[in-house]
Amino acid sequence: MIRRILAWLMAIIVASGGAGVHAQTATTPAPVPSPAEIVAAAPAADWIDIAPSDLLVMDLANGKRVVIQLVPPPFSQGWVGNIRKLAAARFWDGTSINRVQDNYVVQWGDANAEDKAKAKRLPEGLAVVPQAAYETAPPADLRKFYETANTADLIANQFRTTTFQDASNYARNENHFRGWLVASDRKTVWPVHCYGMVGVGRDMPPDTGTGAELYTVIGHAPRHLDRNIALVGRVIAGIEHLSSLPRGTGPLGFYEKPEERTAITSVRLGNEIADLPRYQYLSTESDSFARFADARANRRDAFFIQPAGGADICNIPVPVRVKP
Amino acid sequence: MIRRILAWLMAIIVASGGAGVHAQTATTPAPVPSPAEIVAAAPAADWIDIAPSDLLVMDLANGKRVVIQLVPPPFSQGWVGNIRKLAAARFWDGTSINRVQDNYVVQWGDANAEDKAKAKRLPEGLAVVPQAAYETAPPADLRKFYETANTADLIANQFRTTTFQDASNYARNENHFRGWLVASDRKTVWPVHCYGMVGVGRDMPPDTGTGAELYTVIGHAPRHLDRNIALVGRVIAGIEHLSSLPRGTGPLGFYEKPEERTAITSVRLGNEIADLPRYQYLSTESDSFARFADARANRRDAFFIQPAGGADICNIPVPVRVKP
Repeated sequence: MIRRILAWLMAIIVASGGAGVHAQTATTPAPVPSPAEIVAAAPAADWIDIAPSDLLVMDLANGKRVVIQLVPPPFSQGWVGNIRKLAAARFWDGTSINRVQDNYVVQWGDANAEDKAKAKRLPEGLAVVPQAAYETAPPADLRKFYETANTADLIANQFRTTTFQDASNYARNENHFRGWLVASDRKTVWPVHCYGMVGVGRDMPPDTGTGAELYTVIGHAPRHLDRNIALVGRVIAGIEHLSSLPRGTGPLGFYEKPEERTAITSVRLGNEIADLPRYQYLSTESDSFARFADARANRRDAFFIQPAGGADICNIPVPVRVKP
Repeated sequence: MIRRILAWLMAIIVASGGAGVHAQTATTPAPVPSPAEIVAAAPAADWIDIAPSDLLVMDLANGKRVVIQLVPPPFSQGWVGNIRKLAAARFWDGTSINRVQDNYVVQWGDANAEDKAKAKRLPEGLAVVPQAAYETAPPADLRKFYETANTADLIANQFRTTTFQDASNYARNENHFRGWLVASDRKTVWPVHCYGMVGVGRDMPPDTGTGAELYTVIGHAPRHLDRNIALVGRVIAGIEHLSSLPRGTGPLGFYEKPEERTAITSVRLGNEIADLPRYQYLSTESDSFARFADARANRRDAFFIQPAGGADICNIPVPVRVKP
């Protein structure tokens, strides 16, 4: 990925004849593509199909649909396995969205989970996943990336093209990896809490939750939750049906009255839904993604007068589309 | 502020007898206050009254109220002056919320502004504010802070207590100043686009907007807008009445049908509203704020097993309350 960015930057410098952005010429400058235009122009080969069996489809009683992509190995697979079992057992059918806290999360599951007399029975065989699984050893290609990283700015943070020194307040490295946003201290790696990420509600540690209680982020990235809660996926379609729900007025944004909750009709894996569109994400290892990330960090399209020169990782989300 | 943090950290170290967080003792550890508990315990002297004349009160036709605090000098005062004139002229009465883009902004003003035949007339005497006003020279106290800052981590970033090297991908310095979140390259300083910040819609540069068209952030901080748009305030009450509105389905989240818009009944300065509560913010120069910022960056309350060791500035919002 880094080599591709460097190659692409070199291509830009060569193509521009070395002229700076502010070169005083009489010719009209070529229009600079926006991030959305770069994504729209990405070749078919840069898009990767998402297997329907890696999608969780939540249908709400109000007719709205939310589609979640489950996080792939090596991340959070204990909880992801539980979620597959819960969906197969139809656990969430008839449950509800119980909490909407502004600038924070929407949470759903069994509203009576805390009341043993009324709680829905969990399916057999759910794994009890240890806290240690909040992070994982880097896979070989990612470990190699971290090992070869040095202080050169582009290498310290693949989407940075300026002279700032560090990627984040939250981790030594942050980067895009196999379609996901991850952070690392180089010994371990973990997914990060950006807008739309889906996590596992839990009680006090060492409980890590089963996966029966899920939430998604609907505000500024609550990165302090990284490595404190399991992340199991991200909403790739329909987040607006969650983020626009009325906020709960109880503590933590829980609804105070049962009738305020939005009922969940069903939650199924994508391969059980006949009419589901095919979804794709833009390969984070592609040239198109390198250009997209650079453009997100350095807006040069007509509206912008002052490119930021960098971006935090949550401001470079992975593009997802319905397969054309 | 820095001295206060250092003094407070020293006090903690002394009080704990130098014992580490993981000291193996048989005694029950003292409960660690959460950020909210620190705010709740702040003495009255740490709270600063917000003048009602610095508030903009927007009443919606659905009965909901949104309260905005205008940004103080030296920031964006050309636009703030225009906004005072627009409110005095009752410009926004009968206008509407026209755009709700998920994970981005809610925007309001005259829906017919682009149609000369139908557009509302702007009041006389609005200033044309130059792009240069997107940033400003640091006031003396802030300049002194920047000049004395060195590489020591606490000083490079007042709310950082770990060994990470830099505050942000977006600026050399980021800190809290007189109740606001600002970024700086040390020569100039500017307010930053966090959740709930209010900015001035505009067309292509060098137009900077009058202030008649306003938006607020309802998603992850779009920091690439810093210094590209004027920030004029922040929502301090009622943001949930904006962030939970249905998303627009047109380009950029504009509503496609006029009936989808939420009508604005009136916008007034706070001193014109008889029954307005008195609002206060927690002084960012107080000991309470230093403790709050530290606790936000290093969650030690019972839920957390892994404190982040840092926070981006938008995750340390300035506490605001109704005066008790």
